[in-house]
Amino acid sequence: MNFSKEAVVASIKDGLLSFPVTDFDANGKFDADSYRRRLLWLKEYEVSALFVAGGTGEFFNMTIEEYREIVTVAVETIGGHVPIIASAGQSAELAKAHCKAAQEAGADGILLMPPYLTECPQSGIVEYAASVCESTDLSVIYYNRANGYLTVDGVQALADRCPNLVGLKDGKGDMQALNIIIKTLGDRLAYVGGVPTAEIIAEAYLAIGVSTYSSAVFNFVPEMAVKFYRELRQGNRDFVRQATREFFIPFVTLRDTQKGYAVSLIKAGADLVGYPGGNVRAPLTMPSEQERATLEQLIEKARTL
Amino acid sequence: MNFSKEAVVASIKDGLLSFPVTDFDANGKFDADSYRRRLLWLKEYEVSALFVAGGTGEFFNMTIEEYREIVTVAVETIGGHVPIIASAGQSAELAKAHCKAAQEAGADGILLMPPYLTECPQSGIVEYAASVCESTDLSVIYYNRANGYLTVDGVQALADRCPNLVGLKDGKGDMQALNIIIKTLGDRLAYVGGVPTAEIIAEAYLAIGVSTYSSAVFNFVPEMAVKFYRELRQGNRDFVRQATREFFIPFVTLRDTQKGYAVSLIKAGADLVGYPGGNVRAPLTMPSEQERATLEQLIEKARTL
Amino acid sequence: MNFSKEAVVASIKDGLLSFPVTDFDANGKFDADSYRRRLLWLKEYEVSALFVAGGTGEFFNMTIEEYREIVTVAVETIGGHVPIIASAGQSAELAKAHCKAAQEAGADGILLMPPYLTECPQSGIVEYAASVCESTDLSVIYYNRANGYLTVDGVQALADRCPNLVGLKDGKGDMQALNIIIKTLGDRLAYVGGVPTAEIIAEAYLAIGVSTYSSAVFNFVPEMAVKFYRELRQGNRDFVRQATREFFIPFVTLRDTQKGYAVSLIKAGADLVGYPGGNVRAPLTMPSEQERATLEQLIEKARTL
Amino acid sequence: MNFSKEAVVASIKDGLLSFPVTDFDANGKFDADSYRRRLLWLKEYEVSALFVAGGTGEFFNMTIEEYREIVTVAVETIGGHVPIIASAGQSAELAKAHCKAAQEAGADGILLMPPYLTECPQSGIVEYAASVCESTDLSVIYYNRANGYLTVDGVQALADRCPNLVGLKDGKGDMQALNIIIKTLGDRLAYVGGVPTAEIIAEAYLAIGVSTYSSAVFNFVPEMAVKFYRELRQGNRDFVRQATREFFIPFVTLRDTQKGYAVSLIKAGADLVGYPGGNVRAPLTMPSEQERATLEQLIEKARTL
Repeated sequence: MNFSKEAVVASIKDGLLSFPVTDFDANGKFDADSYRRRLLWLKEYEVSALFVAGGTGEFFNMTIEEYREIVTVAVETIGGHVPIIASAGQSAELAKAHCKAAQEAGADGILLMPPYLTECPQSGIVEYAASVCESTDLSVIYYNRANGYLTVDGVQALADRCPNLVGLKDGKGDMQALNIIIKTLGDRLAYVGGVPTAEIIAEAYLAIGVSTYSSAVFNFVPEMAVKFYRELRQGNRDFVRQATREFFIPFVTLRDTQKGYAVSLIKAGADLVGYPGGNVRAPLTMPSEQERATLEQLIEKARTL
Repeated sequence: MNFSKEAVVASIKDGLLSFPVTDFDANGKFDADSYRRRLLWLKEYEVSALFVAGGTGEFFNMTIEEYREIVTVAVETIGGHVPIIASAGQSAELAKAHCKAAQEAGADGILLMPPYLTECPQSGIVEYAASVCESTDLSVIYYNRANGYLTVDGVQALADRCPNLVGLKDGKGDMQALNIIIKTLGDRLAYVGGVPTAEIIAEAYLAIGVSTYSSAVFNFVPEMAVKFYRELRQGNRDFVRQATREFFIPFVTLRDTQKGYAVSLIKAGADLVGYPGGNVRAPLTMPSEQERATLEQLIEKARTL
Repeated sequence: MNFSKEAVVASIKDGLLSFPVTDFDANGKFDADSYRRRLLWLKEYEVSALFVAGGTGEFFNMTIEEYREIVTVAVETIGGHVPIIASAGQSAELAKAHCKAAQEAGADGILLMPPYLTECPQSGIVEYAASVCESTDLSVIYYNRANGYLTVDGVQALADRCPNLVGLKDGKGDMQALNIIIKTLGDRLAYVGGVPTAEIIAEAYLAIGVSTYSSAVFNFVPEMAVKFYRELRQGNRDFVRQATREFFIPFVTLRDTQKGYAVSLIKAGADLVGYPGGNVRAPLTMPSEQERATLEQLIEKARTL
Repeated sequence: MNFSKEAVVASIKDGLLSFPVTDFDANGKFDADSYRRRLLWLKEYEVSALFVAGGTGEFFNMTIEEYREIVTVAVETIGGHVPIIASAGQSAELAKAHCKAAQEAGADGILLMPPYLTECPQSGIVEYAASVCESTDLSVIYYNRANGYLTVDGVQALADRCPNLVGLKDGKGDMQALNIIIKTLGDRLAYVGGVPTAEIIAEAYLAIGVSTYSSAVFNFVPEMAVKFYRELRQGNRDFVRQATREFFIPFVTLRDTQKGYAVSLIKAGADLVGYPGGNVRAPLTMPSEQERATLEQLIEKARTL
């Protein structure tokens, strides 16, 4: 751990968040060298925290042994530069193991994902998340999505019980439910926008109190991603509109042609800009040549913004 | 028609929108006297347009004969004060009849609802809406919801084809889809927030370019509703937060206990503040005594805001 | 009314149900002559009841004046041959008007559709349906679908209250909910399968007590539709499997390429077999030439079954 | 492995399937002794296969180390009696590890669950499942549900590619999609009904070719569960109707009051009949005292059937 709880909180309250893809080699194994090169490249751009083995990093597609190695490499490579947040999830027991591994590897915080597969009641989700929070000294951000989606009472109960719960990442984009949470819990938590390609609703997020978000496209158009965040925060609506029209809308349109492309296109984009990270793992699939060509045009466009 | 197209557009680009309930007597028939009294009362408050026989006015629960009478009474009572927008919908043929009746009664614009029951392709929805627009001289706002929901290409096609389409009312609250529409069509249309109890996401709406919304609670707490809109537009986040916490969140919580309460509670509220409008018609149901008591407390709270 | 309540009930408990398309002329107006010709043609095939102005007949796309004429023509043409059931719906008031018109025109029963647009609580749906049942002497079948979907308690309440409620048509295909209704209400009601292209789940329907269903494809491949029903009832699983594989699966696949095609393809099919009924009305759209060609091949296939 | 592929296939084509809960002690750890006692008790009843660490066995709530121990205990205890099928899933890599552990422990087959969390395209799901099938000598049943739901083309592709794919377990209850799969693939696969409390739609399943299903209630009312299956297969509709009315409908009603109760109530039921297995793990929650009392009455009722 290189950063205090306060520093972790500050980092997710203000500033763009980086979610790098995870590098695989030609055999589909984690490629530490390629991953180091990626992190050092992205380090040159202004972000406030690094989320390793997150959704864009295919957390759901890796074993705990791979996870441990990924977090270790990340901390070795850029630990101390900005807070490093590692994921946890799948089941309470496995999530505790993730936390332990992350803490041992020197990570600064945890992004807790929902449980695997099962339907679950609000009180059970709270228990799941609380048991994980209580197992670790690290600060925890809860990723509110899918079968683990908490409404306001659940978020309040979790926050009341766990002092090290510091943030809530929204993965659903339900403005009513999210606004009710924010207006009720206020400054108790930091709020992170986390729908796929979060820039597409960044203005709405910001208006209700979500001051930052995860940028997946930062993986392949980092300059534009950083600029978009800065102009958004400065209230430059013209730039936001232009970038949305010229880059984010066509990107989201391409993304929505195939399930899982919110991740797959990012890996293709990284490859196109000279930082290949191998192929995504099944059940994800790589884009076609034609889709890559479309993406390449979008990258060209992003460079003009 | 008392207002030009330009005046109608201006009225839905800036200023709160009133959607009065429709008054029924003890036998469930339209009560013109009671309705006149309501309109004259609400006229005292600052709104920019009046939507008669809208969703809150139970448009879906009336025959065209009743509709004609309601619009006629509204125009007679406060025509010329602010633009009067009347609904249309159900089928292309009936919607054209609604438009004709509204125009004959002196209304200033049309709010076009989705088709009844059937699933429909985007091109079919465009054809449905365009055929209605082309049948009338009135300015039309399309209510984008349910089976008639248009995505960006559909909205664009409709706007390109129909010069008298002047606005889009959102009834879904999908921020990504709505933002894509707004960033693409820009000033071609005016955008109106129209999810139930729209104040609950008014900040998010405003941030992406939806400068006004329909206020159902204006029916029973008009002063607070007007104040909320004004403070929102002036960027008073403290007031917005306080009113959201103390009034809108508990109201929405009560509303979500029963389907249809987005309308039913409004009628109960109007009754509680001395402007009874009778009962809602089936398939809607009136709140219980206990729910009325909860609502009464909320009204008390609204008066302190 | 040519048939007693008992005869109506018997007709929907056993035997295929015909839902003819509604004929429109080149100007999109109801074409009575073409419609008569259609009914006389279909009369040659063995069905147990005729549903006029039903879903396939674009009930949702017509005014009450058109509706009255359609029902009148149907009764004049084949009244007394089999029970004629006419639709009602949209709002309680309009549905009562539909019932009155149907009864005056000589129809034998009513198929009650859900309310227009609004969300509604179970008790409100019951009130909606009961008020319509109570307004008419005709036997009523409730079409359980969309926003008007009743679960078991609602169906029970409606059946207890309305002696002239004789049937429930399922439009959702939720086997658990439907089975609970059937196992609970048993012989109190007749059950009709009513998902689009109901043959695709006819075996499952039959197994839980749904002994008949609406056949839309009867409009253009009546021989095969009648044979399918007969073989299904006789337990000929080989034929059911073959017809499902060779006709219904490719048909459903084509149908699912575009919203609304459950109706549109039927009208195209009627045209292809020499009984044109004009185009569907917006918001529905007619199939493309290529889709027509595919449909033509399926018709050829049906003739070999 | 005690059974050949043919024997595994035969066991899932005919006969009830047992999915025992997994026993946890007071500290929430796997309790091997209690689990052995359970398996020996359930062995006395006539089932055709035993699924260990399945959905009812909280597969989603355990680490791979626990999983290995559970499968090992099951094989040691009743291996060779009926085929033992163990689960696999979460990610391709982890699922391969599950398969390896199951094969080493002596299991006879694999039930492959969907991937964790991510959205995925059909071709990616096929790749996920195929890579797991190809990693093992065991016969595999694919559990078709949630984000891993395959439509007919995906199931066909998977079956064509993997000779050891022997079955498809349905976890969605979509009769149209399932019937299309069965009518298309026919005898290539065995089909298993797997919605929660599958008895509630067992008649419909059977009618389209799903000849068996997983019985969760077998865990606490084994005699009735076995009788229900036998009477169903013998076409005794009166018994099926009575048991559905008197036991399964009230059970499903109780189950639907809380998410996750499809599993939680089973564990409570096992406890009530003298075979306690400890509490479910978070994110599941145990029923309240009142719910237990209701469940106890249902058990009494089951004993009279």
